[in-house]
Amino acid sequence: MKIYNRAQIEQVTKLDLNALQAVEAGFSALGQGKVTMPPILSMAIEESNGEVDVKTAHIRGNERFAIKISPGFFDNPKLGLPSLNGLMVLFSAKTGLVDSVLFDEGYLTDIRTALAGAISAKHLANPDAATISVLGCGLQAELQVAAIALVRPIQHVNVWARDASKAVDYQQRMQQRYGLSVTIHANIQQACRDAEVIVTTTPSKEPLLNWQDIPRGAHVIAMGSDSPHKRELTSSVILNADHLIVDRLSQSQSLGELRCVEKPLTRPVLELGDIVCGKVRYQRQVDDISVCDLTGTGVQDTAIANYTAQQLSN
Amino acid sequence: MKIYNRAQIEQVTKLDLNALQAVEAGFSALGQGKVTMPPILSMAIEESNGEVDVKTAHIRGNERFAIKISPGFFDNPKLGLPSLNGLMVLFSAKTGLVDSVLFDEGYLTDIRTALAGAISAKHLANPDAATISVLGCGLQAELQVAAIALVRPIQHVNVWARDASKAVDYQQRMQQRYGLSVTIHANIQQACRDAEVIVTTTPSKEPLLNWQDIPRGAHVIAMGSDSPHKRELTSSVILNADHLIVDRLSQSQSLGELRCVEKPLTRPVLELGDIVCGKVRYQRQVDDISVCDLTGTGVQDTAIANYTAQQLSN
Repeated sequence: MKIYNRAQIEQVTKLDLNALQAVEAGFSALGQGKVTMPPILSMAIEESNGEVDVKTAHIRGNERFAIKISPGFFDNPKLGLPSLNGLMVLFSAKTGLVDSVLFDEGYLTDIRTALAGAISAKHLANPDAATISVLGCGLQAELQVAAIALVRPIQHVNVWARDASKAVDYQQRMQQRYGLSVTIHANIQQACRDAEVIVTTTPSKEPLLNWQDIPRGAHVIAMGSDSPHKRELTSSVILNADHLIVDRLSQSQSLGELRCVEKPLTRPVLELGDIVCGKVRYQRQVDDISVCDLTGTGVQDTAIANYTAQQLSN
Repeated sequence: MKIYNRAQIEQVTKLDLNALQAVEAGFSALGQGKVTMPPILSMAIEESNGEVDVKTAHIRGNERFAIKISPGFFDNPKLGLPSLNGLMVLFSAKTGLVDSVLFDEGYLTDIRTALAGAISAKHLANPDAATISVLGCGLQAELQVAAIALVRPIQHVNVWARDASKAVDYQQRMQQRYGLSVTIHANIQQACRDAEVIVTTTPSKEPLLNWQDIPRGAHVIAMGSDSPHKRELTSSVILNADHLIVDRLSQSQSLGELRCVEKPLTRPVLELGDIVCGKVRYQRQVDDISVCDLTGTGVQDTAIANYTAQQLSN
């Protein structure tokens, strides 16, 4: 049994096309029906404003499966600690023996979450999308853009964030780390005006993005909502979208943007894995608006953990 | 963060009254409504005849909570490996940071499972119960008897097992390790004839124990069934019992002996924790037959893991 810390994991698994390919293969396997993925285990630790989620999945034929434990303790910043944390335990899919423990402190979750955004953009956004608008300016606001830039010729970033001073930090970070120019906007309408891709990355409990804010041709990636009390899109976005895609239907209905839609949907909801593997055909017109809700799935965790374990053992 | 192996854990956590008290406190907290305990996460790894269960619970006020991962790979014996395995990860209940990892290989599960049997006997069996009958002769057939002997003046053990040669091994083991005399019986009727406590410890998929096999005054502990395809008691046992107790109602209905009962129950089903904490009064007549179904709960895992972590840090 091997034990790895975050620094060791960061050295081998980066936000790049190799890691993207690994997570994409996970989505493809999901679409092909090759994945066992039970519902998420979730527990609140109310007295500490905390929660813990456990996600897992097994991709048939993979040497290992991962169980990911993600605690989120939202008073931690007051103690000078990060809110999110966690580890992944890899087991042999043949014997159930522990293969390795990745004490990644949530790093691999950050990576696989950003890569899901990139996979969404790769398969669903217009190929020449160069302008991206981001709501929120936290870590995923950074990583989603960096990941999507792997698959689309991103030239310019528009950002809106509730806290203007943090938006300035974000602007500097994106310039320094990725050479990307960022324009800060005072409201969501302005921020999205020229968007070809929109990524919502907030922990909002109230919908932020309206249908009329989305320009024709844009692809919307809603990755913030991953629990029953979060929501970023108004129902009008879901109801009017020309294409509606989710990472996992059951999760989007319980934890994601499909949870709050009041009216029955008139369009089919597609799963990203079905499109990635080619089982379902996705055809967008250049002016279509597509909306993809990402809640985060166990197959991404098992895929990135397997990839990391392979890299570490090389 | 501390990491402990099985040998270190075995040194501090034994099948004794201290550990019993820790698990009993967990059941008591459950009865008092002080425990958050989500449903079990379970995943099959079909191509390897394997499964993995994840259990957790948090006892409010406890310093730590545990997440237990238990793989069961039932072709492992062909490879010379044990079927059951696993580890527990302890987290700070204040920050969600990993406190320690207990690579117990399933040892703590064995202990807390046996202790639940003892807690059941302590609170539900006649005080002078001295004769115990066991169905099955595996590890739990041994540990349940050893644990129950902590709380009842056990003098004699009757055993029935499908495999007679294994029963002989069991007889020798119980004599050598615990000084207990064991009589081997060719059938269940004979094995249970004089029983004051009956423990069913098999992985049976068909009910084994009939109502007419149970003598008046006996307390039955059904601990074998913990998944939807296992079952040890006929419906008549459940329907006729003077007292019916379970560790967790929802689990007994989905994974345990309440799953297959065809008729509506005419008696209330009590939860063990409610009796342990005194919320519900349990009064048995000396000739009553009581039946307790144990499926294994996350609160036992968190309780034994917390106890072990305390011992290890002393």
